Amino acid sequence: MAQKGTIICAPATSGGGAIALIRLSGPGTIETLAGIFKPVDDQIDIIKANGYSLIYGTISSQDEFIDEVLVSLFRAPHSYTGEEMAEISCHASPFIQRRIIEILIERGVQTASPGEFTMRAFMNGKMDLSQAEAVADIIASDSAAAHRLASTQLRGGFSKEIEKLRMELLSFASLIELELDFSEEDVKFADRFALTETVIKIKSLVDRLAASFRLGNAIKKGMPVVIAGRPNVGKSSLLNLLLQEERAIVSDIPGTTRDTVEEVLHVGGLLFRFIDTAGLRDAGDRIEEMGIERTHGRLKEAEVVLAVAEATDRAEDIAGFARSLAELSGDSGAKIILVINKSDLAGSGEITRLKKELPRLCDLPAVFISAVTTSGMDELRMVLTAAVETGRLDAPQYIVTNARHYEALKNVSESLQRVLDGFRDGIPTVLIATDVRQAVYYLGVITGKITPEDILGEIFSHFCIGK
Amino acid sequence: MAQKGTIICAPATSGGGAIALIRLSGPGTIETLAGIFKPVDDQIDIIKANGYSLIYGTISSQDEFIDEVLVSLFRAPHSYTGEEMAEISCHASPFIQRRIIEILIERGVQTASPGEFTMRAFMNGKMDLSQAEAVADIIASDSAAAHRLASTQLRGGFSKEIEKLRMELLSFASLIELELDFSEEDVKFADRFALTETVIKIKSLVDRLAASFRLGNAIKKGMPVVIAGRPNVGKSSLLNLLLQEERAIVSDIPGTTRDTVEEVLHVGGLLFRFIDTAGLRDAGDRIEEMGIERTHGRLKEAEVVLAVAEATDRAEDIAGFARSLAELSGDSGAKIILVINKSDLAGSGEITRLKKELPRLCDLPAVFISAVTTSGMDELRMVLTAAVETGRLDAPQYIVTNARHYEALKNVSESLQRVLDGFRDGIPTVLIATDVRQAVYYLGVITGKITPEDILGEIFSHFCIGK
Repeated sequence: MAQKGTIICAPATSGGGAIALIRLSGPGTIETLAGIFKPVDDQIDIIKANGYSLIYGTISSQDEFIDEVLVSLFRAPHSYTGEEMAEISCHASPFIQRRIIEILIERGVQTASPGEFTMRAFMNGKMDLSQAEAVADIIASDSAAAHRLASTQLRGGFSKEIEKLRMELLSFASLIELELDFSEEDVKFADRFALTETVIKIKSLVDRLAASFRLGNAIKKGMPVVIAGRPNVGKSSLLNLLLQEERAIVSDIPGTTRDTVEEVLHVGGLLFRFIDTAGLRDAGDRIEEMGIERTHGRLKEAEVVLAVAEATDRAEDIAGFARSLAELSGDSGAKIILVINKSDLAGSGEITRLKKELPRLCDLPAVFISAVTTSGMDELRMVLTAAVETGRLDAPQYIVTNARHYEALKNVSESLQRVLDGFRDGIPTVLIATDVRQAVYYLGVITGKITPEDILGEIFSHFCIGK
Repeated sequence: MAQKGTIICAPATSGGGAIALIRLSGPGTIETLAGIFKPVDDQIDIIKANGYSLIYGTISSQDEFIDEVLVSLFRAPHSYTGEEMAEISCHASPFIQRRIIEILIERGVQTASPGEFTMRAFMNGKMDLSQAEAVADIIASDSAAAHRLASTQLRGGFSKEIEKLRMELLSFASLIELELDFSEEDVKFADRFALTETVIKIKSLVDRLAASFRLGNAIKKGMPVVIAGRPNVGKSSLLNLLLQEERAIVSDIPGTTRDTVEEVLHVGGLLFRFIDTAGLRDAGDRIEEMGIERTHGRLKEAEVVLAVAEATDRAEDIAGFARSLAELSGDSGAKIILVINKSDLAGSGEITRLKKELPRLCDLPAVFISAVTTSGMDELRMVLTAAVETGRLDAPQYIVTNARHYEALKNVSESLQRVLDGFRDGIPTVLIATDVRQAVYYLGVITGKITPEDILGEIFSHFCIGK
């Protein structure tokens, strides 16, 4: 990281494309730029130009013409970082980008570390830490759901929720501290019952936020879905069908196609991560014998399990298979969906019978599909996204997607639990006050009200260059 | 290609990075943008905003928040395409880029084909065809020399040179046509000797431009350098030394590293393409025997041949080896440089003797290096770039880098040759006039004064999207 007060620069776009952006930030940026940039309209003086102006001109170093560019100027504090800033929009030639950065460095500008622009924005109070982290998330977001979570966080909704909790705890803390000031007199200002109630309320909110991390993380990284079923039941055809249809949607725009992870795909605005279940070869009642560690683990990770069977199977066998999967996935809370394939092969009598018998045997959604005629695929997609949406009903208004926030929330919850235990066991107020202060501290860590320097460095190093 | 009068859009940056640019062009662009973009400062009305203004705000579709963006507005004709334009600078998330383009398409905007923005700029008279082609070259330029050629062409220098020749030929043509109008009277207005002189002058300029294509193409694609020498003479060490030192310079900036073509590197602002000479195993007088077709071809392509020998070799052998190489490369005009390696192993007496004897035996530059101590590497780099610079002295002020221009110049030269032959053989003026008109036509093809529609489509399809 460069020192405060220095000018930093970095390319904000990656290689390729037609246009590249080079960003500059720091006091004196525009004066430095004036040394290499000449507006085509010689009436314009960029030193005097207003913020938010856009100027066309050429970049040169002495006699060496480098490029025709568009320059955007920003005056402090009305910029992303809150500092004086400029953006150079040049041709995306590797040579041109390199040369522009070289001649900036010759003039004393320093190259920015990853995330350094956003870190300056945080340092200058343009955003809190949770919002700053959302910037990295929004850039990485590749599904509607991940984007929704990141943009809610970016716009400060999550921070406000945390700040509200923190203020409640702070006023609670001040009551407790007041008691301490008068401790010799053994006065209890605060009604212990009312206090307990407040702590329980806050703790339950914190716990629900922490619990949402599993879902938030799944949304960010892709909802894990295990496809299970005996061989030849149509697991691969099912995946291929889903893949083929979705592939067409993500074409054309650069950066949307994922390299080789064929099992990741978007369904209804959510990213799903389909998991190989080669280990789940055996179906029906033989599944218990397998008990393979790996399969256990995969089922425990799953948000959804697609239990694939055939329309010609007996209802009892299908229900038995589903029960085995439910046992194996334990208390992971994975939603199991019965996918009855090859509905084109079964007679309409068989299907009617299955539709009648299955609900009696197990309380799970069942979708009848045919990988051949592709019937039932729309319904499957609906049920699949609904399974996750239903999961979301238990979640609070805001969903935690960041491991750092999750850790902080867990710490808050533990501190509050100690407060509750303390009340119950009649622990001295001075010890309770320490736990309350800790809870307040950890909530502050999320929004960056309290943040050790080294944590900041760690957070911003995960950003991309130029942001 | 979209129809004239429509609005086109495309991402102008490629995947990755922190920021992405989406470009729009066409009448009604700003009104369309107003339907999805809301300035943060609600005093601002983008419909009324000036060109070259920069506005911060949010992009949404109905209730769906998509991103916080910076929008640049341009009013016709003061824009790249000459049309009303806008650029949206958003976060580089694949999802956000996809959504913004989707909602633009919903509002009737069409996605742009590669090069369509530049084609519109050409159609609207913002640049001629040779300048438009230089845009693609400047984006692709990855060395100082390629960048210099492309930027000279972009700024219209080359077009002016061609246009000057075309005007000279046009006035010449009008003289000839005048004779035709009075042909019954058998009047010769133009002095045949003066005319012949003019044609010879123009033809020699055209020929020099055409001849510069070999160099221009080499600069654009990398100067071909063959490294030849018997095994263990230090060919690989030499290449590695060059590679290692240059690698450090091209680090850091995205897009500058070439994937696996290890043999391409920059030396002194020029791109060199080092060519594998596995076929050239045998050295000295045995080289004639080899006569391998492939090796012949490679030597004929070369701009430079590095003939690597050892400081302990006899001067006669080194000179013989160089002569064989010269014969093999034929009249390709490749410059041969003697590289005497392992100067650390030879005694100072041997080196002094070689330095004295070699110039007597062959008139070639000789550089003494040591791949171990790296001595002589700076000198080699200088001699290597100088070999190409010397080649450039024969070239005209402008260097042709484009195969289409080269073809056109060849056609001009042939037409002019027919004019000269016609004068000599006393061919009727009407036939000579046809050849002159052809020469004028082909010069016009370069700058796009005369261009069939299908050639345009072909030219712009080689561009990247968003330009």
